[in-house]
Amino acid sequence: MAQPTDDELTRIAQQLRVDSVRVAAAAGSGHATSSMSAADLMAVLLGRHLRHDFERPEHPGNDRFILSKGHASPLLYASYKALGLIDDDELRTFRTLGSRLEGHPTPRALPWVEVATGSLGQGLPIGVGMALAGKRLDRVGYRVWVLCGDSELAEGSVWEAAEHAGSEHLDNLTAIVDVNRLGQRGPTRHGHDLDAYARRLQAFGWHTVECDGHDVAAIDRALAEARSTLGQPTAVLARTLKGKGVADAEDREGLHGKPLKHPDEAIAELGGVTDLRLEVQQPPAARVLHAVQSGHLELPRYEKGEEIATRSAYGQALTALGSARGDVVALDGEVSDSTKTEQFAKEHPERFFECYIAEQQMVAAAVGLAARGYTPYASSFAAFLTRAHDFVRMAAVSGSDIKLAGSHAGVSIGQDGPSQMGLEDLAMFRSVHGSTVLYPCDANQTAQLVAALAERPGIGYLRTTRGETPALYGPDETFPIGGSKVLRSSDADRVTIVAAGVTVREALAAADQLAEVGIACRVIDLYSVKPVDTATLREAAERTGCLLTVEDHRPEGGLGDAVSEAFADGGPVPRLVRLAVRHMPGSATPGEQLRSAGIDEAAIAAAVRLLVEIAVVS
Amino acid sequence: MAQPTDDELTRIAQQLRVDSVRVAAAAGSGHATSSMSAADLMAVLLGRHLRHDFERPEHPGNDRFILSKGHASPLLYASYKALGLIDDDELRTFRTLGSRLEGHPTPRALPWVEVATGSLGQGLPIGVGMALAGKRLDRVGYRVWVLCGDSELAEGSVWEAAEHAGSEHLDNLTAIVDVNRLGQRGPTRHGHDLDAYARRLQAFGWHTVECDGHDVAAIDRALAEARSTLGQPTAVLARTLKGKGVADAEDREGLHGKPLKHPDEAIAELGGVTDLRLEVQQPPAARVLHAVQSGHLELPRYEKGEEIATRSAYGQALTALGSARGDVVALDGEVSDSTKTEQFAKEHPERFFECYIAEQQMVAAAVGLAARGYTPYASSFAAFLTRAHDFVRMAAVSGSDIKLAGSHAGVSIGQDGPSQMGLEDLAMFRSVHGSTVLYPCDANQTAQLVAALAERPGIGYLRTTRGETPALYGPDETFPIGGSKVLRSSDADRVTIVAAGVTVREALAAADQLAEVGIACRVIDLYSVKPVDTATLREAAERTGCLLTVEDHRPEGGLGDAVSEAFADGGPVPRLVRLAVRHMPGSATPGEQLRSAGIDEAAIAAAVRLLVEIAVVS
Repeated sequence: MAQPTDDELTRIAQQLRVDSVRVAAAAGSGHATSSMSAADLMAVLLGRHLRHDFERPEHPGNDRFILSKGHASPLLYASYKALGLIDDDELRTFRTLGSRLEGHPTPRALPWVEVATGSLGQGLPIGVGMALAGKRLDRVGYRVWVLCGDSELAEGSVWEAAEHAGSEHLDNLTAIVDVNRLGQRGPTRHGHDLDAYARRLQAFGWHTVECDGHDVAAIDRALAEARSTLGQPTAVLARTLKGKGVADAEDREGLHGKPLKHPDEAIAELGGVTDLRLEVQQPPAARVLHAVQSGHLELPRYEKGEEIATRSAYGQALTALGSARGDVVALDGEVSDSTKTEQFAKEHPERFFECYIAEQQMVAAAVGLAARGYTPYASSFAAFLTRAHDFVRMAAVSGSDIKLAGSHAGVSIGQDGPSQMGLEDLAMFRSVHGSTVLYPCDANQTAQLVAALAERPGIGYLRTTRGETPALYGPDETFPIGGSKVLRSSDADRVTIVAAGVTVREALAAADQLAEVGIACRVIDLYSVKPVDTATLREAAERTGCLLTVEDHRPEGGLGDAVSEAFADGGPVPRLVRLAVRHMPGSATPGEQLRSAGIDEAAIAAAVRLLVEIAVVS
Repeated sequence: MAQPTDDELTRIAQQLRVDSVRVAAAAGSGHATSSMSAADLMAVLLGRHLRHDFERPEHPGNDRFILSKGHASPLLYASYKALGLIDDDELRTFRTLGSRLEGHPTPRALPWVEVATGSLGQGLPIGVGMALAGKRLDRVGYRVWVLCGDSELAEGSVWEAAEHAGSEHLDNLTAIVDVNRLGQRGPTRHGHDLDAYARRLQAFGWHTVECDGHDVAAIDRALAEARSTLGQPTAVLARTLKGKGVADAEDREGLHGKPLKHPDEAIAELGGVTDLRLEVQQPPAARVLHAVQSGHLELPRYEKGEEIATRSAYGQALTALGSARGDVVALDGEVSDSTKTEQFAKEHPERFFECYIAEQQMVAAAVGLAARGYTPYASSFAAFLTRAHDFVRMAAVSGSDIKLAGSHAGVSIGQDGPSQMGLEDLAMFRSVHGSTVLYPCDANQTAQLVAALAERPGIGYLRTTRGETPALYGPDETFPIGGSKVLRSSDADRVTIVAAGVTVREALAAADQLAEVGIACRVIDLYSVKPVDTATLREAAERTGCLLTVEDHRPEGGLGDAVSEAFADGGPVPRLVRLAVRHMPGSATPGEQLRSAGIDEAAIAAAVRLLVEIAVVS
């Protein structure tokens, strides 16, 4: 294949601009000017440097491309047209109901989109994950190209990514920064000061190249330099103009996210509508060597009654899973001695990614690894996963299959105090689209659920406990996602206590105490918080008329909400009571914490007695 | 007051170490070694450089101090003892139930703690907010000193702060970095390579000084250099040893967060228990000139029926509030043309803080400004506030009074697609301890609630809508926090529709449509999502037996949960149904989006009819 000439690339770039203007005009919205600044960068990348078989997006040798400035989607879709992937009719469906050409790109119907973008500062961190996969796992020489905006370099997540990529010497990663000087509401902090970006990136271990982002030959040299730089990631800092090519839009404020005012004149000024085609170089033949291992999964087994923390069981089960499956990788936020992924790190060092204290980068790297076919488990304290909330939200938009484990859930951690307590994590993960939220109470249950998550699509979350808990179940018990365990039940049950995790033991003790005074209670271990076992809850409601939830979490969005939602179908609803953490905890022993929060055995027993009395009265 | 000699400071530092070892040993937990590395830094800062009247924490001239590495709380409390603020008996209550000496410091009972720390990477961003207050608003020459760990420099939020401080030339801010080489689970990325940190910080516009963190004279020179550096913030990079002073702990891995194994021997090795006192320099006389303005609040008024977006009303009301109250400040994440805080920026430029696309830094700066007595409103897209989840969580631990406004809530934004839609924000903010969550449906309501939030303690959240909505209420209507508005009601009501924000209009239209076929519905505008108007909901339940919630949010943790929680008191629960956004939206017009999500007029009407039929059947 003959490479396109500079002149041909310039004309392609103009076509990308024209099509960007056209689609935004047709849609009545969309980011025309942000597309126009990057058109030359895109044309040169596609025409000369990217190696990608668009017919086979799964080709292991394909270079990867992420449009981190996802609002420049018109440019991406215009490129798809130039590549012959979509036709002009489809192009003009941009931003309409049912079109796969969404306002910001998502992979749900576009096989060429790696991950959803649109929340700025995420493309580079995810690209780091892909580059890590290429370098450390696939060992295939693909490159990862990320087209960034300049505004988004203000996000701390970009500097987590810069640090990670620099330290890991990811020379297969290139950031192309479209420095168009203008953000959404006006000038960026650094304007056209390319050196400001260069200094920062160099300090983080990057090679940088500055160029005129509208000079096709200069861009070509810069991208070639990126490809030939060894031992360092490269950032191509391109000076560009927003709205480039149209005099009354070029470098002007107030035009972000809008169609041009006079699209017909603009199209004429840009040279008119064309239908040029662009060919992309094929990737070299490649074979990925990390085929899933055939090993039989041997989960750890715990004797009934054995005292072991669910976080330890998590670490052991994950290690076993890693032995059975070569696609399983683990990431940690510099707390592997607490989350207990240190065992995985020891046994599978090549598949363990230390992300240091950078939870956004950790989740982003997981998304990047998942996009490359791996099954990532990323772990930190439940409390600190809130740092990555936006990345988890966007991972759901991407349809990414990632698993997250949050340790040190709830007040039960004890002395460390509220800063370290995950008390909002169930609310956060439950609200994520298509998520699975699990909260095991013992080691065997944990082990089973760690394995089950590997097969589960979407965002999986497992909540673990710091302290030791007795193994309640035998090692052969099964725990399907969406299920629950009825631990006590009789025809005389007057109240159902619904617990999960650390409160299961409290619920059982309370039930025993109540049985002594003649009050029979049903006890449900609701380890699958989402999806929830509606059938079992409904039966309990019918039999006992009242459900008391007890959770080591805030009252909002957690276990109590999960149970309520199970009855939000217009049918009869049982009486409901939520015991949850309503105060701001301080330091105390785990036992004192549960007592202070009113979620221990005594509080449960007292609540049940009160309910029974109310029921008698009413 | 005579300054302590180098020798005296060295002895004070040893006492801080001894007391750190003692309290961790007594508690059986706590971060002794992380305290020991920073003891000399703390002694020199307190003895020679900090200017603070500990008897008057509110003194406007006081320097501010933040222990960003909050796990080194033993060092902080040992310092309080050396300053005579607490006695040895209290010191030994460390980490016990009811003690104000918590595992990680919080300001709830300690007047000398500015903000809660313990989630790493937050102290410096908050310090930037305080330094901005000092420089731009108070115009008092206090300095802000932040003692950071080295591990936490991996957090992106630290680099958002570095960028903000460097760009704003905050020479009243000093970061003292305790580079002890060891994180929680092992060595940090850069170990003792002080230059690695210096290069990065310098690139972000900081002055840096490197020193031996155990050489009192060298520390003194470094801090003096920080104080005398103009036009730039300074980072003092101190090479230290974790566990310094005790041979079998010094510079060793595996000792993070634990008491020393042989505390008595360690104390002896450190020179034994002493009871030395340290005096801190008094601040200069100072007066803050920003006394609250006396202006009468004139909120904007909208005619009934006027079409205006609640985000616009937010911007207008905030501007009016700023005119009436000099303590009101606004922060924005580079989207002020969307959140509509641009009007505030124009009218009160000195009190507007552009934070660029760095939501963590934005919220942290708000916390810092609130700590200095200001009333901050921070705004971005609701979706992007998820970036700052951990900062919001920690602000609640701090007891901070900050207000956040999230625009572009829900699918109703239309074409931009899911990356820009706030669909999890209600769940996130409701789960935050002590929060207030408001979701107005019209302009007059918005204006009133913006003003009401100013008086409300804790974390306040206001959710605004992108598109125009008609003013439903007159300008004299009042909307107390915790209230609701019953918009339709009759004795014949068979179902209650509970809506908020953009779904209120849909609910009213559905009710009108249903009235035509003889089905009377009650309609409640539940603008106060937390706290929720339990009395009105209960009355509606008693009268109609069934509550249908309709929300432009995920089914979990939002309006539906708020209504369910109102009935989680063990009393009878009405039939409940939740209409919410259950699919992953794409691009479409706002009307199409509401229809696709099943939360529009037609969906509500259909659901009510179904419920009425079920009720007839059952």
